[in-house]
Amino acid sequence: SRQGVSEVIYGAGKTAEQIIGISQSFAKHGQKDILITRLDKEKAEKINSEITLKYYDTANIGIIGSMPEKRVGKIVIATGGTSDIPVAEEAAVTSEMLGNNTMRLYDVGVAGIHRLLAHTDEIMTARVIIAIAGMEGALASVIGGLADCPVIAVPTSVGYGAAFNGLAALLSMLNSCASGVSVVNIDNGFGAAYQASMINHMGGLNE
Amino acid sequence: SRQGVSEVIYGAGKTAEQIIGISQSFAKHGQKDILITRLDKEKAEKINSEITLKYYDTANIGIIGSMPEKRVGKIVIATGGTSDIPVAEEAAVTSEMLGNNTMRLYDVGVAGIHRLLAHTDEIMTARVIIAIAGMEGALASVIGGLADCPVIAVPTSVGYGAAFNGLAALLSMLNSCASGVSVVNIDNGFGAAYQASMINHMGGLNE
Amino acid sequence: SRQGVSEVIYGAGKTAEQIIGISQSFAKHGQKDILITRLDKEKAEKINSEITLKYYDTANIGIIGSMPEKRVGKIVIATGGTSDIPVAEEAAVTSEMLGNNTMRLYDVGVAGIHRLLAHTDEIMTARVIIAIAGMEGALASVIGGLADCPVIAVPTSVGYGAAFNGLAALLSMLNSCASGVSVVNIDNGFGAAYQASMINHMGGLNE
Amino acid sequence: SRQGVSEVIYGAGKTAEQIIGISQSFAKHGQKDILITRLDKEKAEKINSEITLKYYDTANIGIIGSMPEKRVGKIVIATGGTSDIPVAEEAAVTSEMLGNNTMRLYDVGVAGIHRLLAHTDEIMTARVIIAIAGMEGALASVIGGLADCPVIAVPTSVGYGAAFNGLAALLSMLNSCASGVSVVNIDNGFGAAYQASMINHMGGLNE
Amino acid sequence: SRQGVSEVIYGAGKTAEQIIGISQSFAKHGQKDILITRLDKEKAEKINSEITLKYYDTANIGIIGSMPEKRVGKIVIATGGTSDIPVAEEAAVTSEMLGNNTMRLYDVGVAGIHRLLAHTDEIMTARVIIAIAGMEGALASVIGGLADCPVIAVPTSVGYGAAFNGLAALLSMLNSCASGVSVVNIDNGFGAAYQASMINHMGGLNE
Amino acid sequence: SRQGVSEVIYGAGKTAEQIIGISQSFAKHGQKDILITRLDKEKAEKINSEITLKYYDTANIGIIGSMPEKRVGKIVIATGGTSDIPVAEEAAVTSEMLGNNTMRLYDVGVAGIHRLLAHTDEIMTARVIIAIAGMEGALASVIGGLADCPVIAVPTSVGYGAAFNGLAALLSMLNSCASGVSVVNIDNGFGAAYQASMINHMGGLNE
Amino acid sequence: SRQGVSEVIYGAGKTAEQIIGISQSFAKHGQKDILITRLDKEKAEKINSEITLKYYDTANIGIIGSMPEKRVGKIVIATGGTSDIPVAEEAAVTSEMLGNNTMRLYDVGVAGIHRLLAHTDEIMTARVIIAIAGMEGALASVIGGLADCPVIAVPTSVGYGAAFNGLAALLSMLNSCASGVSVVNIDNGFGAAYQASMINHMGGLNE
Amino acid sequence: SRQGVSEVIYGAGKTAEQIIGISQSFAKHGQKDILITRLDKEKAEKINSEITLKYYDTANIGIIGSMPEKRVGKIVIATGGTSDIPVAEEAAVTSEMLGNNTMRLYDVGVAGIHRLLAHTDEIMTARVIIAIAGMEGALASVIGGLADCPVIAVPTSVGYGAAFNGLAALLSMLNSCASGVSVVNIDNGFGAAYQASMINHMGGLNE
Ligand SMILES: Nc1ncnc2c1ncn2[C@@H]1O[C@H](COP(=O)(O)O)[C@@H](O)[C@H]1O
Ligand SMILES: Nc1ncnc2c1ncn2[C@@H]1O[C@H](COP(=O)(O)O)[C@@H](O)[C@H]1O
Ligand SMILES: Nc1ncnc2c1ncn2[C@@H]1O[C@H](COP(=O)(O)O)[C@@H](O)[C@H]1O
Ligand SMILES: Nc1ncnc2c1ncn2[C@@H]1O[C@H](COP(=O)(O)O)[C@@H](O)[C@H]1O
Ligand SMILES: [Mg+2]
Ligand SMILES: [Mg+2]
Ligand SMILES: [Mg+2]
Ligand SMILES: [Mg+2]
Ligand SMILES: [Mg+2]
Ligand SMILES: [Mg+2]
Ligand SMILES: [Mg+2]
Ligand SMILES: [Mg+2]
Repeated sequence: SRQGVSEVIYGAGKTAEQIIGISQSFAKHGQKDILITRLDKEKAEKINSEITLKYYDTANIGIIGSMPEKRVGKIVIATGGTSDIPVAEEAAVTSEMLGNNTMRLYDVGVAGIHRLLAHTDEIMTARVIIAIAGMEGALASVIGGLADCPVIAVPTSVGYGAAFNGLAALLSMLNSCASGVSVVNIDNGFGAAYQASMINHMGGLNE
Repeated sequence: SRQGVSEVIYGAGKTAEQIIGISQSFAKHGQKDILITRLDKEKAEKINSEITLKYYDTANIGIIGSMPEKRVGKIVIATGGTSDIPVAEEAAVTSEMLGNNTMRLYDVGVAGIHRLLAHTDEIMTARVIIAIAGMEGALASVIGGLADCPVIAVPTSVGYGAAFNGLAALLSMLNSCASGVSVVNIDNGFGAAYQASMINHMGGLNE
Repeated sequence: SRQGVSEVIYGAGKTAEQIIGISQSFAKHGQKDILITRLDKEKAEKINSEITLKYYDTANIGIIGSMPEKRVGKIVIATGGTSDIPVAEEAAVTSEMLGNNTMRLYDVGVAGIHRLLAHTDEIMTARVIIAIAGMEGALASVIGGLADCPVIAVPTSVGYGAAFNGLAALLSMLNSCASGVSVVNIDNGFGAAYQASMINHMGGLNE
Repeated sequence: SRQGVSEVIYGAGKTAEQIIGISQSFAKHGQKDILITRLDKEKAEKINSEITLKYYDTANIGIIGSMPEKRVGKIVIATGGTSDIPVAEEAAVTSEMLGNNTMRLYDVGVAGIHRLLAHTDEIMTARVIIAIAGMEGALASVIGGLADCPVIAVPTSVGYGAAFNGLAALLSMLNSCASGVSVVNIDNGFGAAYQASMINHMGGLNE
Repeated sequence: SRQGVSEVIYGAGKTAEQIIGISQSFAKHGQKDILITRLDKEKAEKINSEITLKYYDTANIGIIGSMPEKRVGKIVIATGGTSDIPVAEEAAVTSEMLGNNTMRLYDVGVAGIHRLLAHTDEIMTARVIIAIAGMEGALASVIGGLADCPVIAVPTSVGYGAAFNGLAALLSMLNSCASGVSVVNIDNGFGAAYQASMINHMGGLNE
Repeated sequence: SRQGVSEVIYGAGKTAEQIIGISQSFAKHGQKDILITRLDKEKAEKINSEITLKYYDTANIGIIGSMPEKRVGKIVIATGGTSDIPVAEEAAVTSEMLGNNTMRLYDVGVAGIHRLLAHTDEIMTARVIIAIAGMEGALASVIGGLADCPVIAVPTSVGYGAAFNGLAALLSMLNSCASGVSVVNIDNGFGAAYQASMINHMGGLNE
Repeated sequence: SRQGVSEVIYGAGKTAEQIIGISQSFAKHGQKDILITRLDKEKAEKINSEITLKYYDTANIGIIGSMPEKRVGKIVIATGGTSDIPVAEEAAVTSEMLGNNTMRLYDVGVAGIHRLLAHTDEIMTARVIIAIAGMEGALASVIGGLADCPVIAVPTSVGYGAAFNGLAALLSMLNSCASGVSVVNIDNGFGAAYQASMINHMGGLNE
Repeated sequence: SRQGVSEVIYGAGKTAEQIIGISQSFAKHGQKDILITRLDKEKAEKINSEITLKYYDTANIGIIGSMPEKRVGKIVIATGGTSDIPVAEEAAVTSEMLGNNTMRLYDVGVAGIHRLLAHTDEIMTARVIIAIAGMEGALASVIGGLADCPVIAVPTSVGYGAAFNGLAALLSMLNSCASGVSVVNIDNGFGAAYQASMINHMGGLNE
């Protein structure tokens, strides 16, 4: 089990049958809480007819078992626009499943900087921030400049033309002029939340 | 003569002798004010021994004749960092030579958003803004979101690694989520200033 | 409201329901004229059953409320071929909605330069020109060379093979050897028209 | 002051004079410990003739003032090969300057997996790991799979041909099949150490 | 006939009718064992109604005639994940059809290095190894480091975002820091198996 | 001997000694007229001290023996700017050496379309045209539209930023919307002239 | 009319109605022979119900009116594989429609060089050759080396993986080490045939 | 020791002192025959003043100790042009050092296919072939089609313009339409020879 919390299945390219099989084998080994990412609705329903599963539509995530009751610390998940929300929800549901207090801050893109600044408090009190944006990906730099905590940037494939399916945002974020920013793969909300959870769960140095 | 103000020579790849020749031919046709871009110091000195020329070091520009005394309107030239200043000076000297009141706003990059916001007044009173940045190029979006006037973005080749010599900034700026932003070639301070001058000199609709 | 004229919704990736919701909230705030870009016919019809909307087929634009009666200045919109017309219409309808006299000059590509030259008058009397072309994107340079006003170039994804979905035209336009040309994202007719409108509406310097 | 520890100057593209100026202004504001990255030897010597500076050759770093005496936690810095050491030293000196216990694990690339496995203990006891590699960048995935803590991957420009100056390693690391890995810009040892230090310094949740 | 064993048809872009025609012409020339790659199920069934054909579903391969009874040597086919299995099966069925003892070692990706190391015996006794992986493609380097025999690496188009349809894995494998590794085209299981079979069938030097 | 006219040596990457050796061996086989491309001045002088050689400075070409006295037909060589002239001279000297009447039409780029149109006569009477341009490479399309004869386009590496060393011009020319245009490698003046000479020398159909 | 032979319509992105309209307008101007490229079957049938049109299936070409009876000279059209045939037929039908004797030489790719060499006679007697190939595009170089006439190379989008939709073949052909080879856009059979026809129709120098 | 024959040092980026150190440590462990690749002359001389070393100029290789007296089998090393020879010599000296009979077949590029065919005998009797070429890289396909043995292709960075430092040749070779071809990194003569030696040394199946 990863982080003693739940097991993860990457659902893309697996059939409902395969996912059921893997889940049953996890169950046999005593692991009942399972997070399935990149799961479309149709497959979710097939699985649900065999094993009870709660489906998170926007996040494309299915959860077998239950979310942890105890959530700790604070992970803020910010997006530039509304089109980035599916990626953000993948991150948010993952974050909650891994036991983190999770605050959503959606549609605070840099073209309207004052909407973002209105949330300075949330940004300053976060233990980790996940900054999600497509197109020019500037959000990561602005938040990185404001915050004192680690920022994990997620470029999204939102946009058209010279966005090149997330390449523009990816390059932009890798070149962030703010310190304390690292980057995961395009649209990888899960990966960002997984690392953010590791950081949020860090024990203090004297423990 | 372009804009009835001065003639322009693109100095890159031309010898001092060639530039002298072209300048003399301009002079014969009655054009005495000449802007020479992409001119290195050594060539500038050679030319200066034949034709009096004032050299702008950081801008890599030489000027034969004189700057216009009358300057109109207001062009604001902003940069993300100090390394972008050579490109900004190419824009600024061009802008002044073309008869525009020109305000420099350097090193106001988005990683320290409050430094930029401290200049909201200048941004709101500009007729045109030139936003110059390398690395992630986020400056154009933030300024584009704040300002109501046209913004011309100039990506610079500043940065390393995944900056890919200005490609990251270029893509970022082309995907700006702010309206009213257009883009010129990497490091093309001259081109931005030329178009900005056209816009700043626009006659009112009832003239 | 931007430019005191109308509010804009970027329709791509929004459901009809979401667009209706945003429009109703705009209406509540007293903004009745709304431009919705990247809107397909089907969604337009759904919206129309709730809020009266005029749909511009080729432009993929829906308009709630009405076009402004007063139009000022002159924006010329030129295309290289007939396949570029959808992007041009996105620009043209936006331009009209933002209150600009708008002249269409379609299919004047550089492979038949005399068709373009036959329109020299229109080009010389424009306050701003939007040059739209796919494939090799040469139109921007030729018009930029002819005109004395700002030219905003829009590369389109028209073409095949080494057109690479608009990349060839984009690079071509960024490298335009004519002065006074800037560039927006591939297929971004809206963005070009938005900036063109800003420029066309510039007050004179003594106002 | 960042993290209450030291101020940072990015030395690339700044003259010795400029760096002296900035350092003196920091000193005036009471900040005596300054880290200067991307500083070549020649400039370092010039600065040293004005302000005492300790130069770290391989790291290309200069330090004015002193390293912190107290270092906490544990950051492991691993490299695939010996050519990656300059980037690793940039990370290591930064890490030490920011007050972290820092363990170097160099030349443990995946082509000799047993050398890496021999260090399983260090990997399992780290609070954060920085994985630095050029060429195929596989080190990040293997360490990410072994470790339970956050891994920050740094692609380097080491290699030739299809390494494309770090692009191969960058893409490889972004696609890491291990969870808990994020990535910074090519050769950005400083950036990795800065974020690693933030994570290593995390207070426990009950503090 | 290649290698005196069987004839090969590349099925992609050929109609069932064309494949039947080619097969009948091979039959006339005395070649009865035919391997058809990149063959989808539908076409396979059409062909089967004319000529008896055994279809390998996951491999997308059809075989007319029979597999060789005698298989020699040992080719190990390893994959990083389960999504790489279709490519691996294209390699495996080809390998068997060309008369090689073929061992499948699937889902031994480097993020769980101990699963791979558990198979050290198979790796050390192979005459040739085919290493198949998408995403970051690190498998080839790790196996290349462990094994003393030739390793043929096959990047797959598995992954998303910055995997760029196999480009990340391809570059990674070309830059492998292990000696003895060469690479074939993305998803080219057939090509890898064909060369592996050549190597596995090498006569000893004194024959 | 190619075209019964002269032998060609590609000088790049060959030492003066090697070129002398090859030339002497050609001489032994009765071939006295030799064209050496990509030859820098220094090497040319070394060769000249052994074998009489006429050096064409701008073209970077050396010729051993003599130019043909008889020149036929008409090849027009046009460039967009003055920086393209070295490539154009490589083409022009090659064209003359291969026995073609060769007309130079330099600096007729599309940003000043009337300069090009002033030469309509030359364009309409050419048997083949070589169109050479860097930056946006639009010249090929405009000439291709005007002329009725084959046009061979040569992209040059002239430009900066998003010119990407000739890539922008290359893509632009490959996408030319004019019929009758084909393209050679970036800066390949020799290759264009070689094919142009083949075409110019075509016998009529009734010969 | 181009070449006094027939008018051309590029069918991609035009509706059947638009094509009928253009064709009728051509007819009014006395041009009855019309070549329509990139025309799919469905549209062809719609047009045919209004104007008699002969449809060439593999070539995706429709012809209104008739092919010229007189055909002159000799254009050889070679392909590397069978998958390149649609592009080759676009070239071949265009070539015939423009009045050229046209010889098809299909599936003579360089992996079986003797099949190509068996046709040396045809290659040596051609006036122009069109070399069409996908994947590695080596055909152009081999034919260019054998033939003394101009070779026009057409890269095709045939292939998978690192073929990158024709990019590999395109780059390969642009770098051909044989003299006398030029290149057109990926899959542009029409463009190659159009220029080939121009060359094949060249009058002799003494006409 | 690799293959029980000699130890290898990759000299690029190592100082003479470092190489001496490593070599002495190898000597202590009883390994006296050392192959040092990517070694420039200057460093070689420094090393030679400490440890006797034979330097291979064109190959950029230094050898400490001696070449093996016994060489077995047959590796053929072919190049397209003369500029590819440094890479070929890196392969050839490596091959000899690893105990293989090595035959050089240089400058047999496909633009003169008959020069290559004149060597059909050598090609048919090789146990492994290394095909080395820059520019369009077609050599690998032609040799792959002729030969029945494994072919290892090495793209070189020879060429200019759209050769993109070996990218064109690399893509070309990865897409080879011949079976039995695999590819190593650009300019990686060593890597090709290392794998070729493994294959050439294969024991027969009955050993
Ligand atoms: N076609 C378009 N392309 C790019 N940006 C657009 C387009 N249409 C609208 N926009 C921008 O999108 C904004 C509205 O986005 P949203 O808030 O998501 O509806 C507008 O204010 C414009 O800045
Ligand atoms: N999956 C594959 N990928 C690449 N090449 C293949 C594949 N399958 C077969 N081939 C090659 O294609 C040749 C047959 O091509 P064809 O004559 O078009 O059927 C075979 O001899 C192989 O060289
Ligand atoms: N500037 C050039 N660019 C490309 N190819 C060239 C050039 N100059 C000469 N060549 C070709 O190189 C061949 C000579 O190559 P080499 O045998 O290496 O001297 C000539 O026959 C031409 O085909
Ligand atoms: N398959 C093709 N690929 C590229 N260009 C073509 C093709 N077919 C026709 N054309 C060109 O398109 C022109 C007609 O374009 P249009 O006026 O849009 O019908 C012709 O004159 C040709 O130059
Ligand atoms: Mg911060
Ligand atoms: Mg704005
Ligand atoms: Mg102009
Ligand atoms: Mg881990
Ligand atoms: Mg090995
Ligand atoms: Mg023409
Ligand atoms: Mg030839
Ligand atoms: Mg073969």
